[in-house]
Amino acid sequence: MLEDKDQESTPLQQLGEFGLIDHLTKGFSTTQKSTQKGIGDDAAVLHFGDRKTIVSTDLLIEGVHFDLSYMPLKHLGYKSVMVNLSDIYAMNAHPTQITVSLAVSNRFPLEALEEFYAGVALACKIYGIDLVGGDMTSSQKGMIVSVTAIGCAEDKDIVYRSGAKPNDLLVVSGDLGAAYMGLQVLEREKEVFKVNPNSQPDLSPYTYIVERQLKPEARKDIVALLKKLGVIPTSMIDISDGLSSEILHLCKKSEVGCNLYEDKIPLDPTVISACEEFKIDSTLVALSGGEDYELLFAIDQKEFPKIKGNPNLTVVGHMTDKNEGAHLISRNNSKIPLTAQGWNSFSEKE
Amino acid sequence: MLEDKDQESTPLQQLGEFGLIDHLTKGFSTTQKSTQKGIGDDAAVLHFGDRKTIVSTDLLIEGVHFDLSYMPLKHLGYKSVMVNLSDIYAMNAHPTQITVSLAVSNRFPLEALEEFYAGVALACKIYGIDLVGGDMTSSQKGMIVSVTAIGCAEDKDIVYRSGAKPNDLLVVSGDLGAAYMGLQVLEREKEVFKVNPNSQPDLSPYTYIVERQLKPEARKDIVALLKKLGVIPTSMIDISDGLSSEILHLCKKSEVGCNLYEDKIPLDPTVISACEEFKIDSTLVALSGGEDYELLFAIDQKEFPKIKGNPNLTVVGHMTDKNEGAHLISRNNSKIPLTAQGWNSFSEKE
Repeated sequence: MLEDKDQESTPLQQLGEFGLIDHLTKGFSTTQKSTQKGIGDDAAVLHFGDRKTIVSTDLLIEGVHFDLSYMPLKHLGYKSVMVNLSDIYAMNAHPTQITVSLAVSNRFPLEALEEFYAGVALACKIYGIDLVGGDMTSSQKGMIVSVTAIGCAEDKDIVYRSGAKPNDLLVVSGDLGAAYMGLQVLEREKEVFKVNPNSQPDLSPYTYIVERQLKPEARKDIVALLKKLGVIPTSMIDISDGLSSEILHLCKKSEVGCNLYEDKIPLDPTVISACEEFKIDSTLVALSGGEDYELLFAIDQKEFPKIKGNPNLTVVGHMTDKNEGAHLISRNNSKIPLTAQGWNSFSEKE
Repeated sequence: MLEDKDQESTPLQQLGEFGLIDHLTKGFSTTQKSTQKGIGDDAAVLHFGDRKTIVSTDLLIEGVHFDLSYMPLKHLGYKSVMVNLSDIYAMNAHPTQITVSLAVSNRFPLEALEEFYAGVALACKIYGIDLVGGDMTSSQKGMIVSVTAIGCAEDKDIVYRSGAKPNDLLVVSGDLGAAYMGLQVLEREKEVFKVNPNSQPDLSPYTYIVERQLKPEARKDIVALLKKLGVIPTSMIDISDGLSSEILHLCKKSEVGCNLYEDKIPLDPTVISACEEFKIDSTLVALSGGEDYELLFAIDQKEFPKIKGNPNLTVVGHMTDKNEGAHLISRNNSKIPLTAQGWNSFSEKE
């Protein structure tokens, strides 16, 4: 992979910390009007006028959040940005700047870091955001990525996790479970590769789910769509840990209950077939798989005509009184309490 | 130390990620008018009105930036915040919020994290800033801390690294080299402890330098002092990597040269005696030691009467034309080119 030292590679010691920062960030320009000063001082200087400033941050650790044996570094750079932008979109806000900090052990040559930053640069370009700072250091083991995203929004547009009311409709963008099933495919191929390093896996039947795992997109388009439709959700969250966990967050912060209908959960056909192949229940995957980076939100019932029939949005349930709790209504109409089975980095892995 | 599992300890698995975040952040309240929404949503919401927003971030890795065998976790929490606040003050701005992300391996019990957050809380209280977000995850090895600080300032007050002019005076706050010498003392005691675990070191002669290493303070007071004196520096930086490295940053960004006078470099008597004991040149320590978190700035000569005689500020040199380069004028009046010998995390350690 990219860490192969047999390729022409440049040891990081050769550049030093500041040389490295200069080298890796020289291709970044700033385009946001709100960026007054980007990289190259003690701190960035931003300016948002009368709008609110939104800040979100995530820390990604090799071996916990990503596996470089199948995650190309360019994709990792891209995904690290997406994870953070997704949080800003989940506030119904617009990301404008990011900072990216990186720690790597000395097994990484300069070329590996260039790949990573190429992914960051692509994300910045596609999503129209500026890289304005960060930190660069060595690690004792593996790669560590910390991204902070900053955005802005009009006060009236900001949507919190709180705010959902009983009888609000629960809506999800896109489809669920694909990122998790993509991970299963990649993990399986990794095991095959360990046994037979000459094997050439045919991943073409899994293109969609593998791409959802390796190169997810944050739903900027959904925030734009809601604006266009004139819909301001009553509450919203992004789906990073699984539908179940996120619904419970909305219920807790909004002090409501929820009925989620199993037969409404949007699943791509590739996810269904992969679930059959891996003998995993597709509902469980949607509920607990995580890393989908779709948006989950509640809207007042009167808004339903505005979103009805939109292929990007699916009504999956409705909010209830708090004392009714949060439940999955299964296909056979039984009522199963939702539990936070989402990804938990402190639990033992299966 | 705090990681001793013989004490009553709570495994992190028992709480899970969200339980852990709730537990560790429940004691934090928000006090800044600009904090509209803190912890508990996808992102924090800040609001700075017409002022500029300033952002800085740092990533700290166990074994690279800190050694938990002598760094108490409460001090580490405090210092992690200081490192970032120092960058905001170096813009002549005021920090208002921070995000703190933490990754730990499962050798850390809950009580260790509580200690860390107690240090963060103390820093927030003393410096009057709000903790508004972060991330919490597991690491494969050791502890990783990522802090982002956000601040604000009037546009006219912001000071960049660029802006210094030839003949400007170069001024430093406090004294230099103490944090590095504190580290030498702690490293020596660690080696003694390895040989004889029953040894009880008497660190009292080293109180000042050890505290400068373990519990540094960001120079909020200097930003306030400059305001009070009516002085706006032409350029400014904080001294995290050593005086030499920081002077070269100012020279590069301001496109000037510099003469630094060896006999003007402020040294605490404890630093001088420790340097004698360790047989290290005290000038070298000030130039390259790092972690002092003092402020280094340039001012127009006409501002000199305002700072003259102030015990917190020392004129250490003056800026020159760019083509004269950056030099140390030694006690015996020889002219030695300044080189960036500051801390470089990618270099082999001595």
